[in-house]
Amino acid sequence: MASIIRCSVKRRCLLSRLKNLPGAGDSPLPSSPSRCVSLTWLPSPRWSSRGAGVRFMSHGTAGGSSAGGTRRGAVALGGAAALTAAAAVAGFLANANHFQRAEMATSVSPALAKEEKEQEGDILERCRGFMSPPVTDISVLQQMKGEMRTRMEMLIMETQADFCRALEEVDGGTFKVDRWDRKEGGGGISCVMQDGKVFEKAGVNVSVVFGNLTEEAAKQMRSRGKVLKGKDGKLPFCAMGVSSVIHPKNPHIPTVHFNYRYFEIEEEDGNKQWWFGGGTDLTPVYINKEDAFHFHNTLKEACDKHHSQYYTDFKKWCDRYFYIRHRGETRGIGGIFFDDLDSPSQEEAFSFVKSCARTVVPCYLPIVYKHLSDSFTDEEKDWQQVRRGRYVEFNLVYDRGVKFGLATPGSRIESILMSLPLTARWEYMHEPAKGTQEAEMLEVLKNPKEWV
Amino acid sequence: MASIIRCSVKRRCLLSRLKNLPGAGDSPLPSSPSRCVSLTWLPSPRWSSRGAGVRFMSHGTAGGSSAGGTRRGAVALGGAAALTAAAAVAGFLANANHFQRAEMATSVSPALAKEEKEQEGDILERCRGFMSPPVTDISVLQQMKGEMRTRMEMLIMETQADFCRALEEVDGGTFKVDRWDRKEGGGGISCVMQDGKVFEKAGVNVSVVFGNLTEEAAKQMRSRGKVLKGKDGKLPFCAMGVSSVIHPKNPHIPTVHFNYRYFEIEEEDGNKQWWFGGGTDLTPVYINKEDAFHFHNTLKEACDKHHSQYYTDFKKWCDRYFYIRHRGETRGIGGIFFDDLDSPSQEEAFSFVKSCARTVVPCYLPIVYKHLSDSFTDEEKDWQQVRRGRYVEFNLVYDRGVKFGLATPGSRIESILMSLPLTARWEYMHEPAKGTQEAEMLEVLKNPKEWV
Repeated sequence: MASIIRCSVKRRCLLSRLKNLPGAGDSPLPSSPSRCVSLTWLPSPRWSSRGAGVRFMSHGTAGGSSAGGTRRGAVALGGAAALTAAAAVAGFLANANHFQRAEMATSVSPALAKEEKEQEGDILERCRGFMSPPVTDISVLQQMKGEMRTRMEMLIMETQADFCRALEEVDGGTFKVDRWDRKEGGGGISCVMQDGKVFEKAGVNVSVVFGNLTEEAAKQMRSRGKVLKGKDGKLPFCAMGVSSVIHPKNPHIPTVHFNYRYFEIEEEDGNKQWWFGGGTDLTPVYINKEDAFHFHNTLKEACDKHHSQYYTDFKKWCDRYFYIRHRGETRGIGGIFFDDLDSPSQEEAFSFVKSCARTVVPCYLPIVYKHLSDSFTDEEKDWQQVRRGRYVEFNLVYDRGVKFGLATPGSRIESILMSLPLTARWEYMHEPAKGTQEAEMLEVLKNPKEWV
Repeated sequence: MASIIRCSVKRRCLLSRLKNLPGAGDSPLPSSPSRCVSLTWLPSPRWSSRGAGVRFMSHGTAGGSSAGGTRRGAVALGGAAALTAAAAVAGFLANANHFQRAEMATSVSPALAKEEKEQEGDILERCRGFMSPPVTDISVLQQMKGEMRTRMEMLIMETQADFCRALEEVDGGTFKVDRWDRKEGGGGISCVMQDGKVFEKAGVNVSVVFGNLTEEAAKQMRSRGKVLKGKDGKLPFCAMGVSSVIHPKNPHIPTVHFNYRYFEIEEEDGNKQWWFGGGTDLTPVYINKEDAFHFHNTLKEACDKHHSQYYTDFKKWCDRYFYIRHRGETRGIGGIFFDDLDSPSQEEAFSFVKSCARTVVPCYLPIVYKHLSDSFTDEEKDWQQVRRGRYVEFNLVYDRGVKFGLATPGSRIESILMSLPLTARWEYMHEPAKGTQEAEMLEVLKNPKEWV
């Protein structure tokens, strides 16, 4: 089992960019000033060399240029035999297997990708804004600054921090930060806020794991069409991702989920295979067309910057993936979902993933603020709880990441099942009456719509 | 999908045998006089020939002797290709596959079996006590009175009625009775009481399905060591069972589950293979040693009448089966579980199953009555809800019956998921403090005990 180092990094910072979001003024919760907390337990030599306390502050996004390009090599890739997957990365091996792969475009804007690469700032400066020091030692990240692994780890840490702060801002509560190590290599940072003012349960998880792929896992790779040649049956891999599920209390505020991940695998001849996966999707309790348009349109705009076909393809893929087969209904109103993204170039694929990750806050927070003060009835709360039950059904029965995680010895179960709501309900033969808003919701789940 | 005929057979009857149970006098609920309701919708020609209304009354258990022995043959076995399994029978194909089969004893008391056979009464008279007319037409049951199928269908209907009445008696509420047909052959009767005074959710399900085994299902048979030869790849089968899960409101009253089932399959040469499966197990929220002893000892006494090894073997099997692997804990404190029971003779195996089925009420009801007026705190209710979450995890992730049912097109989902609690809770990193009763409960779940 992964050993767990618990800490109590509890902070609230002003998310200045949120001020510009529509609806932000509706918040009944007071903004709190930026507050920084000293951490004394940092495992990284680079951090501890800075003295007894390291101050975390809002990270900058400008300045500095990427350097390096040195290979991290076999040290980071070595480790125990089993792939221990936390929620964020567990989907890598399993997600795409049973779903027809959306036809992928092969051209994005190289200029955009190049521009973004140049904007990546100083590692140490950026780390100060995170919820916790990154999983990988900062000294290693600095040495390998230009490597995709480093750039992706920085992106997922940044995404976690941005999203957690936006949620703390609106809720008034603070995230509990758990840092955990994986015996076989790597670890993760789980941020959870439970029973807050606005959020019933909010989890934002980062994990960075490495080691050797088991034969079973490698077999799953191959069945996806990935031809991989290992040395003595072993394939060194590195997998990382950020994943989040937010269940609000008010039934008029939808649940959101996102997950962005990166996978690298080294073949016998030293050749590296890599790909990205991810997506963001919304699960409302009641249909609000304006919200649905805002959510999908924000995703579409992020996709369109990279390829005109991405949104269409990945929206379809999302509807197919988040499908509760035994109910004949989708989990929610979708969003985007993709896997196996390894074209047109690593740089451009990363640029797309970065756009998606940075779109999470503007996709979701305006909807939260808009409905913050909505009143609701007991019946509406009950319907929310029934829908939560369906969420549990999807996650435990179908979600390939969860299934893979639960079946993998050494997984951190609490991080995998962080996605389950605090409360859920199963009513026998629950059927909304015709013409009700509940029936309208079900109709959409049975027949996914185009929102943009 | 199975078409559903809903009805509103809502009755409360005195369960006279309950009066003799220890603790029955503790009930704060008044006994109600036997009340009978007219049913006008009966699909069976035999029943409808009795006029517009058929009266249901408490069934007798004495008198009459079994006759017949005529083969029902291909008519009942014919049907569509897919095995549509309701909860009660879904486990047939899957339950034992990954569990080492307990070494089974090969000798029971033939005298006991013979005596019991002679005590089976008049079909029509017995049917009057059921929650609904049986799935199979009564005229057919009467013609085939001596067949194991008929005797088992009568037993599961009787078990459903006895248990439902015992629960109605203690709760004061009434069961909603849903009768449903399976397009491909057979159907079921689901009895559900939701949000009662004592029970949060109580479901007692009967199903009797027949048709042809698919190749996939047949393959699962074979992997269990059953060598089956079909005609043109098809294997006519008949499966029936009664299953139940009861979730009480008071955290000091445990959840109970039981399931008794019978399977018949006809090979190419007309040879019939058959076997029984089932079990009863308890899932308390808090450990009460007296309850645990009563529950296990009642089961042991029923087992001991048939073979001295049954309780020991089937108790172990139960602990192995109801295991939540990713949590490293059992679902509850167990009971008995068995499958593939096809020895020493059909008569004696049935006699054992009958003893088990008739033990459900005396196993559970005394515990319900004993704790009916127990007070509880919000914290105790929360712990119950967390345990309910684990119940959901087991049922959706591991239970082979549920998994098989959800994956089978045409299954009646509401009957399969009837086993889920009305409400459940998932708290991140929930860990009971040392020395608490919650910690004591967890300790037992991590290290199953001998209770007798």
